[in-house]
Amino acid sequence: MKTLINAAMKREKCDLVIKGAKVFNVFTGETEEGEIAVKKGKIVGIGKGYEAERAYNANGAYALPSFIDAHIHVESSMLSPEEFAALSVRHGTGVIIADPHEIVNVCGIAGAEYMKEAFSHIEIEGVNPLEVCLQLPSCVPASPFETSGAVLDGRETEWEVERDLFYGLGEFMNYPAVIGADREALQKIEAAVESNKIIDGHAPALSGDALNAYASAGIKTDHECVNAQDCLEKLKKGLYVQLRNGSSAHNIEENAKAMNAYNYRRFILCSDDRNAYDLKNHGEIDDALRRLVKTGVPAPWAIASATLNTAECYGLRNKGAIAPSYDADIALVEDLKEFRVLATFKRGVLVSEGEKALFSAERYISEEVKSTVKIKEVNADDFKLDLSGKARVMRVKPNGIMTEEEILEVESKSGDVVLPQGVCKLAVIERHFASGNMGKCLLSGYGLKDGALGISVAHDSHNLVIVGDDNKAMARVAELLERAGGGMAIVNGKFEKSFALDIAGLMSSAPYEEVIRKTEEITAHARGMGVEEGIEPFMSLVFLPLAVIPKLRLTDKGLVDVDKFEFVSSQIKE
Amino acid sequence: MKTLINAAMKREKCDLVIKGAKVFNVFTGETEEGEIAVKKGKIVGIGKGYEAERAYNANGAYALPSFIDAHIHVESSMLSPEEFAALSVRHGTGVIIADPHEIVNVCGIAGAEYMKEAFSHIEIEGVNPLEVCLQLPSCVPASPFETSGAVLDGRETEWEVERDLFYGLGEFMNYPAVIGADREALQKIEAAVESNKIIDGHAPALSGDALNAYASAGIKTDHECVNAQDCLEKLKKGLYVQLRNGSSAHNIEENAKAMNAYNYRRFILCSDDRNAYDLKNHGEIDDALRRLVKTGVPAPWAIASATLNTAECYGLRNKGAIAPSYDADIALVEDLKEFRVLATFKRGVLVSEGEKALFSAERYISEEVKSTVKIKEVNADDFKLDLSGKARVMRVKPNGIMTEEEILEVESKSGDVVLPQGVCKLAVIERHFASGNMGKCLLSGYGLKDGALGISVAHDSHNLVIVGDDNKAMARVAELLERAGGGMAIVNGKFEKSFALDIAGLMSSAPYEEVIRKTEEITAHARGMGVEEGIEPFMSLVFLPLAVIPKLRLTDKGLVDVDKFEFVSSQIKE
Repeated sequence: MKTLINAAMKREKCDLVIKGAKVFNVFTGETEEGEIAVKKGKIVGIGKGYEAERAYNANGAYALPSFIDAHIHVESSMLSPEEFAALSVRHGTGVIIADPHEIVNVCGIAGAEYMKEAFSHIEIEGVNPLEVCLQLPSCVPASPFETSGAVLDGRETEWEVERDLFYGLGEFMNYPAVIGADREALQKIEAAVESNKIIDGHAPALSGDALNAYASAGIKTDHECVNAQDCLEKLKKGLYVQLRNGSSAHNIEENAKAMNAYNYRRFILCSDDRNAYDLKNHGEIDDALRRLVKTGVPAPWAIASATLNTAECYGLRNKGAIAPSYDADIALVEDLKEFRVLATFKRGVLVSEGEKALFSAERYISEEVKSTVKIKEVNADDFKLDLSGKARVMRVKPNGIMTEEEILEVESKSGDVVLPQGVCKLAVIERHFASGNMGKCLLSGYGLKDGALGISVAHDSHNLVIVGDDNKAMARVAELLERAGGGMAIVNGKFEKSFALDIAGLMSSAPYEEVIRKTEEITAHARGMGVEEGIEPFMSLVFLPLAVIPKLRLTDKGLVDVDKFEFVSSQIKE
Repeated sequence: MKTLINAAMKREKCDLVIKGAKVFNVFTGETEEGEIAVKKGKIVGIGKGYEAERAYNANGAYALPSFIDAHIHVESSMLSPEEFAALSVRHGTGVIIADPHEIVNVCGIAGAEYMKEAFSHIEIEGVNPLEVCLQLPSCVPASPFETSGAVLDGRETEWEVERDLFYGLGEFMNYPAVIGADREALQKIEAAVESNKIIDGHAPALSGDALNAYASAGIKTDHECVNAQDCLEKLKKGLYVQLRNGSSAHNIEENAKAMNAYNYRRFILCSDDRNAYDLKNHGEIDDALRRLVKTGVPAPWAIASATLNTAECYGLRNKGAIAPSYDADIALVEDLKEFRVLATFKRGVLVSEGEKALFSAERYISEEVKSTVKIKEVNADDFKLDLSGKARVMRVKPNGIMTEEEILEVESKSGDVVLPQGVCKLAVIERHFASGNMGKCLLSGYGLKDGALGISVAHDSHNLVIVGDDNKAMARVAELLERAGGGMAIVNGKFEKSFALDIAGLMSSAPYEEVIRKTEEITAHARGMGVEEGIEPFMSLVFLPLAVIPKLRLTDKGLVDVDKFEFVSSQIKE
């Protein structure tokens, strides 16, 4: 501390001075010209006339506190932590609140330990370029409707949430259990409250008494708001509204309408699920800022939502501002409209510049996250679905992750449904214990013809999700996915393609350029097979087993009506 | 937690429902009609149709989160904690961040322990009506210029700040030590930072590099702002601005000019030093709100400054809002202009109504805080002050606590100065160890004639401060103060009056009505002896030894020039 004070008083040289920046002050919402003086990773002043070991010329760029992503599942990028960090940092992110929900559902706590270690070993000049606050996944499995690779019960959660490994308790998706005062759900929440750790929420369409009950449990955030009214009710009840800029789901534009000069402090920006392509080409929180400002929200409110508000929400005391005693986590951006990130500093170290992260790290991959896809052998006949008369069909819609229920008249032939025009089959195959569990249903609105494709990423238990109109092709997709240790695969009469996600069947150990290119290639193939516009061929599949989002979902155990919170049959009896 | 959720869902009866209130929501800044449902001391919902054990009809009053006083020295009320709580609560306060700086300067940590215990034993229906977060005094003594009753060095502070007894580290008044990177000052601050405890500040007239240095130490608040520019600089540097509504010092009106829709979240309201008369008749934070709104600040910003902002600043997670999971700490006020408090609830228990606290508590007084005034015998000759020619005179000004330096031509007669028109003598007598230390100087702008008065409250070491134009009367005042175990005393040719402050020489064990009446009586006597308008006869004296506020101060060791941070002589050599 002495050296900080001496540097502030100009009695000692600073380590770094950033000159020529327009410095945004998140406390006042104003911008001023001044040198940012940094010592031992801390900001010690904004002023003039500092001497320093190094000077960095910002050339008139805006200096913002580097961004805090309030909620992200890193696994959804399909990138290793090392590659994720490279992209995240070059888009101005300094801290992520990461919920390793996916990998923990596959590998248990060993998955979280892997994430922690993989992020921690990335280093540049003694600094960790991206700081990660891990949330303990609260719903493993996310629902009783599916088979996950691990189970974290109330007791284990009590124990884990106290560990230093975890910053807080991850999004409590099983809201019916909270509202129903389920013993085990409350055991988890109480443990987090007792450890004084923040609890993230997930409260789609909750309102009235149910939202009161959910908030009464001490849950503090929600990223599932769908419109201004929804936001305002959640705000009123004390939840921070996380504006989500995911690849599949985004709600910034609708929800920004709720934001005003008084309540802007209760909005925070997050990615939730974001793929590598979007991370590279559009960015992360920088992209969210751009979108938010485009809705007409003043830049100072938006920036606060990406920095100070999030730091306050999560109790990150020295983050989110460029001011003395704050960590020297700084993003230089071109303007306050497009927010193109020119350089990022972490604790006073330049960690990215231009389009490039200035660090690289060998992959760290623990044994527990390797070779995780284990299925019982399947063949074409296993994909038969004997339905006739009225059938319950899951309908997907463009640009969203909600599904609808559609009732169609179908016929059966040789013990298998004759697929109506525009309808495919959807299958979810258990892949952790090779149990042979398989759920099947009909899927409309997706549009695939003459083949099948599948993926081993499938929220939240990450069983294999396979869609197709050809039983043989579906079986072959399952086989390809198993061989690759997870990934994406596509099969039709003419070709087979697959791309391995060798870390837990969720993430690739390849460089991000390769992940993006291979994902694009395989996606282009899928698109060529008729997948509808507005439907991401693979990424829309990954939400189809997620039995916490209305209306219909399919798991390895069968079809679920989320509103009723029970299994339903595809066959409607008349 | 189960019972909270069940109550929220109306599956169980609530303990309390407050009906007919206009409920202010501090997150949205809006007011809505609705029933406030309370269970086990927590708010579980704002809605309709709750069943409850008790109903309370608010009759159209506004329901606000009860107020948080961000910084107060309870001792300045001269009331026992029990009597203070009764007044504080009836003015809508729910939590105080109390810095027992005064009593710790007299009695050491035993003083803080006494405060904690005295507040804790007050109870109504199993609830503590006023919650107290004690800050560990950081400056005992406040400066090296005076003799205090205790010394808390760096090492002891390291040890104490970790204790549960203390919520954080109290205002760091010795700002020169911080800026100078004094070893012991930094030892204290580092200990608080390591314990993750908040550090309050005190930064009068600090700006530029010095303020950068002060903020770099991790100090997070300041209540010494004097104008909008001062506020804005402190805000920018990450300090919360505490708007002060003390009895002697208040800065709301000037500083409110800095407040706007963007930065209002960084302002918080506090009392600092407030006497019993003001507490009873004008209130505490309710009065601050009234004053703040009168400046034109919108009520929602003002209320946030009294509630949510303060809770955020101090990390009081479930305080400062009326929303599910928040403590049911509620003040009902008549309107959002005068903020007259009609009733106060603490954790769902009605603790005051109308003009009356609904609890009373026996005095708790520990041995350590009794009989604390010990002086060496003094007589009239001890008050002689041999000055001639140019003399340095301390000048007090109406309505403020700053002093100025005035140079006057004086004559000496029989080894004692001949007091010019309008000039008195000021003496400060050490009273902890009967050492005989006595500081003396001339005082202008005060106005007392034909006698003397004195008090044992004197920031921050609480030695005896005596003012007069008559050596014999001054000696008699010292004698009266010693006999009473501290208090206030006044002497002239015609009468003698004294009022005992039997708790540490700072606070009275009498009921607040008596404290107010006796203080008024003795003050009226002082006023009758010529004390100038705008000068509080006793309460202005108590700041005169406080060698951290410019310009001149007098301690038991002599006259101090605060700007130069050194002792100076009353006699100016020519």
